[in-house]
Amino acid sequence: MKELKYLSPTELLSIRRRRKKKAEPGVVSKKLNQMPGALIYTGERHVDQVRLELMQFNPEDLIETSVDFNGLQDLRKDGYTTWLNVVGLHEIEAIQKIGEAFQIHNLALEDILNVNQRPTFDEYDDHFFMAAKMFRTSDETIISEQFSMIVGEGYIITFQEKDGDIFDGVRGRLRNAKGRIRTRQSDYLAFALLDVIVDHYLAIIEEYGDEINEQEARLLGDFKKTILNDLNLSKKEVNYLRRFARPLRDTVISFNKSDLLLIDKKTRPFLKDLNDHITHVTETIEVYRETINDNLNTYHTHMTNKLNDVLKVLTIFSVVFIPLTFMAGIYGMNFEHMPELSYEYSYPIFWGAIVIVALGMVYYFKRKKWL
Amino acid sequence: MKELKYLSPTELLSIRRRRKKKAEPGVVSKKLNQMPGALIYTGERHVDQVRLELMQFNPEDLIETSVDFNGLQDLRKDGYTTWLNVVGLHEIEAIQKIGEAFQIHNLALEDILNVNQRPTFDEYDDHFFMAAKMFRTSDETIISEQFSMIVGEGYIITFQEKDGDIFDGVRGRLRNAKGRIRTRQSDYLAFALLDVIVDHYLAIIEEYGDEINEQEARLLGDFKKTILNDLNLSKKEVNYLRRFARPLRDTVISFNKSDLLLIDKKTRPFLKDLNDHITHVTETIEVYRETINDNLNTYHTHMTNKLNDVLKVLTIFSVVFIPLTFMAGIYGMNFEHMPELSYEYSYPIFWGAIVIVALGMVYYFKRKKWL
Amino acid sequence: MKELKYLSPTELLSIRRRRKKKAEPGVVSKKLNQMPGALIYTGERHVDQVRLELMQFNPEDLIETSVDFNGLQDLRKDGYTTWLNVVGLHEIEAIQKIGEAFQIHNLALEDILNVNQRPTFDEYDDHFFMAAKMFRTSDETIISEQFSMIVGEGYIITFQEKDGDIFDGVRGRLRNAKGRIRTRQSDYLAFALLDVIVDHYLAIIEEYGDEINEQEARLLGDFKKTILNDLNLSKKEVNYLRRFARPLRDTVISFNKSDLLLIDKKTRPFLKDLNDHITHVTETIEVYRETINDNLNTYHTHMTNKLNDVLKVLTIFSVVFIPLTFMAGIYGMNFEHMPELSYEYSYPIFWGAIVIVALGMVYYFKRKKWL
Amino acid sequence: MKELKYLSPTELLSIRRRRKKKAEPGVVSKKLNQMPGALIYTGERHVDQVRLELMQFNPEDLIETSVDFNGLQDLRKDGYTTWLNVVGLHEIEAIQKIGEAFQIHNLALEDILNVNQRPTFDEYDDHFFMAAKMFRTSDETIISEQFSMIVGEGYIITFQEKDGDIFDGVRGRLRNAKGRIRTRQSDYLAFALLDVIVDHYLAIIEEYGDEINEQEARLLGDFKKTILNDLNLSKKEVNYLRRFARPLRDTVISFNKSDLLLIDKKTRPFLKDLNDHITHVTETIEVYRETINDNLNTYHTHMTNKLNDVLKVLTIFSVVFIPLTFMAGIYGMNFEHMPELSYEYSYPIFWGAIVIVALGMVYYFKRKKWL
Amino acid sequence: MKELKYLSPTELLSIRRRRKKKAEPGVVSKKLNQMPGALIYTGERHVDQVRLELMQFNPEDLIETSVDFNGLQDLRKDGYTTWLNVVGLHEIEAIQKIGEAFQIHNLALEDILNVNQRPTFDEYDDHFFMAAKMFRTSDETIISEQFSMIVGEGYIITFQEKDGDIFDGVRGRLRNAKGRIRTRQSDYLAFALLDVIVDHYLAIIEEYGDEINEQEARLLGDFKKTILNDLNLSKKEVNYLRRFARPLRDTVISFNKSDLLLIDKKTRPFLKDLNDHITHVTETIEVYRETINDNLNTYHTHMTNKLNDVLKVLTIFSVVFIPLTFMAGIYGMNFEHMPELSYEYSYPIFWGAIVIVALGMVYYFKRKKWL
Repeated sequence: MKELKYLSPTELLSIRRRRKKKAEPGVVSKKLNQMPGALIYTGERHVDQVRLELMQFNPEDLIETSVDFNGLQDLRKDGYTTWLNVVGLHEIEAIQKIGEAFQIHNLALEDILNVNQRPTFDEYDDHFFMAAKMFRTSDETIISEQFSMIVGEGYIITFQEKDGDIFDGVRGRLRNAKGRIRTRQSDYLAFALLDVIVDHYLAIIEEYGDEINEQEARLLGDFKKTILNDLNLSKKEVNYLRRFARPLRDTVISFNKSDLLLIDKKTRPFLKDLNDHITHVTETIEVYRETINDNLNTYHTHMTNKLNDVLKVLTIFSVVFIPLTFMAGIYGMNFEHMPELSYEYSYPIFWGAIVIVALGMVYYFKRKKWL
Repeated sequence: MKELKYLSPTELLSIRRRRKKKAEPGVVSKKLNQMPGALIYTGERHVDQVRLELMQFNPEDLIETSVDFNGLQDLRKDGYTTWLNVVGLHEIEAIQKIGEAFQIHNLALEDILNVNQRPTFDEYDDHFFMAAKMFRTSDETIISEQFSMIVGEGYIITFQEKDGDIFDGVRGRLRNAKGRIRTRQSDYLAFALLDVIVDHYLAIIEEYGDEINEQEARLLGDFKKTILNDLNLSKKEVNYLRRFARPLRDTVISFNKSDLLLIDKKTRPFLKDLNDHITHVTETIEVYRETINDNLNTYHTHMTNKLNDVLKVLTIFSVVFIPLTFMAGIYGMNFEHMPELSYEYSYPIFWGAIVIVALGMVYYFKRKKWL
Repeated sequence: MKELKYLSPTELLSIRRRRKKKAEPGVVSKKLNQMPGALIYTGERHVDQVRLELMQFNPEDLIETSVDFNGLQDLRKDGYTTWLNVVGLHEIEAIQKIGEAFQIHNLALEDILNVNQRPTFDEYDDHFFMAAKMFRTSDETIISEQFSMIVGEGYIITFQEKDGDIFDGVRGRLRNAKGRIRTRQSDYLAFALLDVIVDHYLAIIEEYGDEINEQEARLLGDFKKTILNDLNLSKKEVNYLRRFARPLRDTVISFNKSDLLLIDKKTRPFLKDLNDHITHVTETIEVYRETINDNLNTYHTHMTNKLNDVLKVLTIFSVVFIPLTFMAGIYGMNFEHMPELSYEYSYPIFWGAIVIVALGMVYYFKRKKWL
Repeated sequence: MKELKYLSPTELLSIRRRRKKKAEPGVVSKKLNQMPGALIYTGERHVDQVRLELMQFNPEDLIETSVDFNGLQDLRKDGYTTWLNVVGLHEIEAIQKIGEAFQIHNLALEDILNVNQRPTFDEYDDHFFMAAKMFRTSDETIISEQFSMIVGEGYIITFQEKDGDIFDGVRGRLRNAKGRIRTRQSDYLAFALLDVIVDHYLAIIEEYGDEINEQEARLLGDFKKTILNDLNLSKKEVNYLRRFARPLRDTVISFNKSDLLLIDKKTRPFLKDLNDHITHVTETIEVYRETINDNLNTYHTHMTNKLNDVLKVLTIFSVVFIPLTFMAGIYGMNFEHMPELSYEYSYPIFWGAIVIVALGMVYYFKRKKWL
Repeated sequence: MKELKYLSPTELLSIRRRRKKKAEPGVVSKKLNQMPGALIYTGERHVDQVRLELMQFNPEDLIETSVDFNGLQDLRKDGYTTWLNVVGLHEIEAIQKIGEAFQIHNLALEDILNVNQRPTFDEYDDHFFMAAKMFRTSDETIISEQFSMIVGEGYIITFQEKDGDIFDGVRGRLRNAKGRIRTRQSDYLAFALLDVIVDHYLAIIEEYGDEINEQEARLLGDFKKTILNDLNLSKKEVNYLRRFARPLRDTVISFNKSDLLLIDKKTRPFLKDLNDHITHVTETIEVYRETINDNLNTYHTHMTNKLNDVLKVLTIFSVVFIPLTFMAGIYGMNFEHMPELSYEYSYPIFWGAIVIVALGMVYYFKRKKWL
C-alpha cells in the first residue's frame, strides 16, 4: 500500500510526481516558456487550409465573396458592415496577418488561437473580443468547437476551427433584404451570432432532458444494474456543458453591462433577452444535475432494497429449516437407549412436530411483516 | 458495458449523441434558425379560437364587452383604464395585430408566445412586460399555464393559454363600484393580478405541506416500503414549483425596484407586501425540500434498521442451532468404538447438554443486548 | 406502483392533485379571492374578548388603565408616550376601529391579523410596523404566538393573540419612576419589547443546547435505538425555531438601518446590541443543527458497527462449525466399506482432528483481528 | 414510540417542552427580565479579588504600578498612554466604578461582564470596544477565557477573567525603552494585544494540524475501531475554535475599516497584516474540517471493506461446505435399497467427488477474484 | 472509551490538550512572543549561502551580474529597470540589509521570511508587495517553494528559497533585445513573473487531469480495491493546490484593481488576461474535485454491488441446499417404524424429489432475476 504524504501546513512539501514523463508535452507545457501574447495554436488541424468568408452589407446592398490574405487592409468599405469569417486556426501566420490588418491586440490573438480559452468578454479601445464554446449536433454526434469574434465599428471578424457551422440562419437573414439585421450594425450581428450559439445550448439541453427522463422511467420500470453507467455518463456530460455555460453567462452579462459606444441603444433589449436565455440554460442545467443525483439516489435505494430482499429470503429459509434439520439430526443419533426410536407412532408425531414448528415460524414472519 | 468518454480539458471533445433522431423536432429545435423576435408559439392549442375580453373602468363607470380584432387601435378611451385579456395564444397573427395596435416590442411578443418563457420583468420605453407561470387547482388536478402582461399608461393587456382563470375575484372587485381598485390605475391592477397568482402559489404550497406531514406520519406509523414513491413524487413536484417560484421572486423584486413613472407611489406598499408573500412562498418551499429530504433519510434509516433486525434474527437462530446440530451429528456417527452410545443415560445427558448450550447462547445474546 | 410523471421542461404540465378535497378550506384558501388589504383573521380564538391595556408615561407620571373601543381617537395625550396593548385578534371590527383611530395602513392591519405573517419591518409615512413570532415557556410547554406592533411619534400599539405575556419586566421598569425607559420615547420602548422577545429566543435555545448535549451523552453511553426519535424531534424543533429566527434577524437589521426620524440617536447603540444578540441566536441555531447532524451520523455509525458485530459473530460461529459438522456427517454415512469406522482409536482421533480444526479457525480469526 | 408533532405552517404550534424544569436557572434565564444594559456577570469566579494592573508609558518613561478603586478618575496622566488591565470580572461594583471613571457606555459594560459575548467591535463617540475569546495552552490543557478592551485617546482598559495571560511579551516590549511600541499610542497597543491573541489561535491550530495528521496515519496504518472517538473529538474541538475564529475575523475587519481618528495612519499596515493572519486561521480551520471529514469517510470505507471481508469469508466457507455436507447427508440415510452403500469402492469414490466439488468451488471463487 | 467533553455555549470551557508537549516548538510557537514585524525565518535552509542575481535593462542595454551585500544602496541606476533576485532566505541579516537599502516596510520583510505566508498583495506608499506559492516539476517530483516580490518605480526584488527556478524563459526574453519586455517597466516584469507562476499551476493541473482520467478508466475497467488509496491521494493533492490557487486568485484580482501609478495603462490588458488564466486554474480545480468525488462514489457503488453479489451467491447456495440437507436428514433418522425406508423405490423417488425441489428453487431465483 502506497504511503500517503501528510501535507502539513508548517512544513515545506514536495508533492510526489508519480506518473512517468509523457512522450510528448501537453498543450500547456508547450506554452510554459512563451511570452504572454505569443501565438501558439493549442488545438488540432481540422481543415486543409485556412479559409476566409466575407459578407459586406448595408440596408440596400449585400456583397458575398471569398477572399485571400492579400489586401486584407483594404477590405473594409465605407457605408458597409464587414463580416469576415475565418475557418481553421492552425496557420498562425494567417491569423497574424488578420491581426495586423485590423490592429487587433496580441492578447486577443493569443486567446483566439487557444482552443481551451474559457468564454470571456474583453474590451479594448475601439473593439471588443468574445470567446465561447460552440456546440452543434450532426447525425448521432455532438460537435464542440471554439468560437471567437472581434467586433469593431463597421466590422466583425469571427473565428472557428471546423468546416460547417450553425450560422446559416443568420446568413439567410442577411441575404433577405427585408430583414431587420440588414439595417443594424456590427453590434447587432454580434448579438445575433451569440444568440444562435445560446439557442444551440438550449437545443442540446432539451435532448439531455429527454434522456434523463427516459433514464428515470427505466429506473422505475424495468430496472437493470447497467443503468448506472448511463447515469454516470449523463452526469459527466451535463457537467461538461455546465463548465462552458456558466462562464458564457458571465460573458453575456459583461456584454450586457458594457458601456462601449459601439453597442447601440436599440440592441440593448436584445441583449437583455439573450441574458434571459442563457440564464434559462444555466438554471436548467442545475435542475438536471439535481435530477441525475436524485436518479443516482434512487438507484442506490433500489440496490439496498434488493439486498434487503436477498437477505430476507436467506433468513427465512435458514430460520425455518435450521431447527428442523436439528430435530432430524437428533433422531439420527445412534444412542442405544433412545425410547422414542422404538415407539410405534414416533415417526408421524415427528412429522407433526415439524409441521407445527414450520407453521410457527411462518406465523412469526407474518407478524413481523416479512412475508 | 458502454465506454465512458474522458472529457479531458486539453483535448477537443465531441460528445457522443447516443439517442436516435426524434421523429419530430422539439420546440427549441423549431426556433433554432429563427430571427430573434420571430413569433413562434411553443405551446399546444387549448382553445378553439383566440378570444378577447375587454374591461374599461374609471371610478364612476365600468364597460365590459367582448371585442374582435378589428378596431383594436381605437380601443383605448380617455379617462378610462383599459384591461384587455387575451385567451389562447396559438394564432400568431392575432397576437401580432395586438402588438401593432399597442406598439409592443417584438421581443415582448416573442416572449408572450413562448410558454417556456421563465418569469421575467422587462422595462420598455413606455410600458413594461411581465411573465409568470400561473397555477390553479381544479377538482383533483393542478393546472399550470403561462401568463404574461403588458402594462402601459392607461392600459393593461394580459395573455393566457386556457379558458377559465383565477382572476374572477379581481373582476368582481372591479364590478363593485366602491372597491379601491376602481380608483387606481393600470399599475395597481397589474399588482392585483400578480397578487392573485402569488396567493395561488401559497394555496398549492399549503396542500403540499399537508401531504408532506401525512407522509411523515405514515413513515412513523404504519411503515410501508412503497412510501418511497410518494416521497420521490413530492420531491419532484416541490422542485417543479420551486423552478417557477424563485424567478418569480426575482420578477417581483424587479417590479418593486423599477422607477418607472407608471408605478404610482401609492402602489409601492402593496408591492412591498407582495414581495413578502412571494418570499414566504420561496422560504416555505425550501423548508419543504428539507423536510422531504429528512423524510427520505428517515426512510433509509428504517430500511437499515430493518436489515439489522433481519440479520440479528438470522444470526441468533444460526448461532444457537449450529453447535446443537454439530452435537447431534457427532452421535449420528457410525464408529464402532464410541463408548457413549451404549451408556444408559447418554440420551438424557445429551439433552441436558443441549439445553445448557442453548441457554448459554441465550444468556450471551441477552448480555450483548441483542434480545 | 404509482407512475411518476416526467416534468419535462418543454411540455406543459398539469401536476396531479392526489389528495381528496378537504372538508373545510385552509387559511390560505379562505384568502384566495380577497382584496389585498382585506382583513381576515387567520388564527384561532384564544381569548373571550379582545382586551385593551393602556399605559401612558412621561418621566414624571404614569397612567395605567383598561380602556374600551369608544373614544380611541382621544386616547393620545400630549407630553405622554402612549402604549396600547391589544390582547386577542379574533374580532376584526375591533382591530379595524384601532386602525381608524391611529390611521394605520390597511396592509399593516392585514398583516397584524395574519398569524402566519413572517417577521417583517415596514416603514410608512409617520409610523413603522413590525411583526415577529414570540416564544415563551410555561410549565412543560413552549407557547408560540404572533406579535406585531405599530410605532409612531408618541404612541406604540402592540398586538398579541393570547393572555399572559413576557413583557411584565418592561411594565415593571415603566412603573419604576427611576428607570431609563421612562425618560425615552416610543422607539426605545419598541426596542425594549423586541429585546425581551430576542432574550426569550436565547433562553429557549439554551434549553435545546442542554437537550442536544444530553442526547450526545446518551449516544456515547447507554445507547438505545429509540434515541433516533429524540434526535429527529430535536432537529425538527430547531429547524422550526430557525424559520422564525432568521427573518427576525433581517427585521432587526432593517430596524437598525432605518433612517426614520422617529428613531432617536441615543437608541442606536441599543439596536446595534440587539443585532448582536439575534445574530448570536442564529449562529447558535446553525451550530446546533450541525451538532444534531453529527449526532445522527454517530447514530448511523453505531448501527453500522453493531451490524458488523452481528455479522462477525455469525461468521465466526458458522465458519468454525460448518467444517466440523461436515466431518461428523462423513462418519455418519452408512457405506459398508469404511475402514475407519471399525478402527479402534477412530473416535478419539476424530475428536483430536475436530479440536485441531477448531483451534486453527480460532487462530485464523485472531490473526485477522476479528477476535 | 413518542409522537412527532407536525409543525404545519398554517397552524399555531406549541412546541412541547419535554425536559423537567432545571433546579437553578441558566445564565440566560437570569438575564431574562433585566433592563438592557443591566450589569450581570454570566461567568464563574476565577480569582479571589478583582485586581488592577497599571502601565503608563511614553517614549521616555514607563510607570508600572498596581492600583485600587479609589482615585480611578485621576489615573490618566497627560503625555502618557495609560494601560489598565482588570483581572477578574465577578465584582460588578468594581466594573461599574471603572465604567464611571472612564465614562464607558453601559452596553459596553454589560458586554464586558458577559463571558458568552461573541467577538465584536463597537464604536462609541470617543472610544471603541472590542471583545474576543482568548485561548492559551498551559501544560496539557487549553485555557479559554473572555477578553475585552476599551480603547480611547490616551488610554486602553483590558478585561480578563483569570490570572495569568498571554501578554507578557507585550509587557516586555513596553519595558524595553527602545521598542517601537513605546513610541505609539493606544491604537497600536490595541493592535499588539489582538495580534498576540491571533498568534495563539495560530499556535493552537498548528497543534490540531499535527493531531489530525497523526489520526490520518493511524487510519492508514494500524487501524483500530476506537479511532472514531478521536476523530469525533477533533471535529468537535475544531468546530468550537471555528465558532470564535469566524466572528473574530469579522471583528478584525471592522477594526480595519473603522475611520475613527483614534486609529493612526501608521497603524493601518499592521491591521492589514493582522487581517491576513486571522484569515489564515479561518482558512486553515476550514481545511482541517474538510480533512477530518475525509478521515471520517476513510473510517467508514474501512469499516465497509471489513464487512465485505467478513461476509466473503462466510460465503466462501458456506458455499464450499454446504454441498459437501449435503452429500454426506445422502449417504447417512437408512434406506434399505441404496445400491451404492454396498459397492466396495463407494467410499473412495465419494472422497474423490468431494475433492472435485471443493476444487470446483475454489476455482469458481478464483475466477470471481474473491480469493 | 474516552469521554467526550460537551462544549456548552453557556459554560466556560477548557479544551483538553491531549498530546504530549513536543520536544521542539513549531514555527508558530517560535513567533508567539515576538513583536509584529520581527524578522524570523520560518522555513528550512535550502542553499549554502544567500545569493544575489542582478539584471538591469532598458530598451538599448542589458547588464547581468552577481552582486554582494556591500553597496546595495548604490545599485539602482537611472534609466534602467533593476531586477534583483534573492536566492535563499535563511540569513536574516542579509534580508534586513536589502530591506534597508530599498526602504522596505518591516511587515513586508516579515512576510518574505515566512514561508507559510498566504498569497497576498499589499500596497505601500511607493511600492507593492506580493507573495505566492510557486510550483515546478523536476523529474518525478513537484517542488513547491515560497516566492515573494517587492515592486517599486524602476526596481523589482524577488525572493525564492531554493536554487533553480522557472524564470529562465523571462530571462531569455530579457536578453533578447527585441522582446516587448525590454521596452516596459517593473510593473510589466512583475506581471511576466506572475504569469510564469500561473502557467506552471496550469501545467501541474493538466497532469492531475490525466491522472484522474486514468483512475476513472481503472475504476471502470480492471477494478482493484487498492485504487482507493490513489483516489484519496489525488484528492489530498488537489486540495493542497487549491489552498494556494484560491488566495493567489484574490491576489491577482487585487493586483488588477490596484490604482497605483506604478502600474502602466498598457499593462492592464495583460493583468486582465492573467486574471482569466488563474480563474481557469481555480475552476479546473473545482471540476477535478467534483470528478474525484464522483470517482469515490463510483468506488463505493462498486463495493456495494460486489457485496450484493457475494450475498446473492451465499443466499442461492444456502437456499437450494438447506431443504435438501433437511430431507436427507429425515431419512437418516433411526426410527424403527419408518415405512419409506423399506420401500424398494424410495431411494430413486427421493432423488427425484431432490431434483424437483432444486429445479423449483432455480426457477424461483430466475423469476426473481437473481440468476
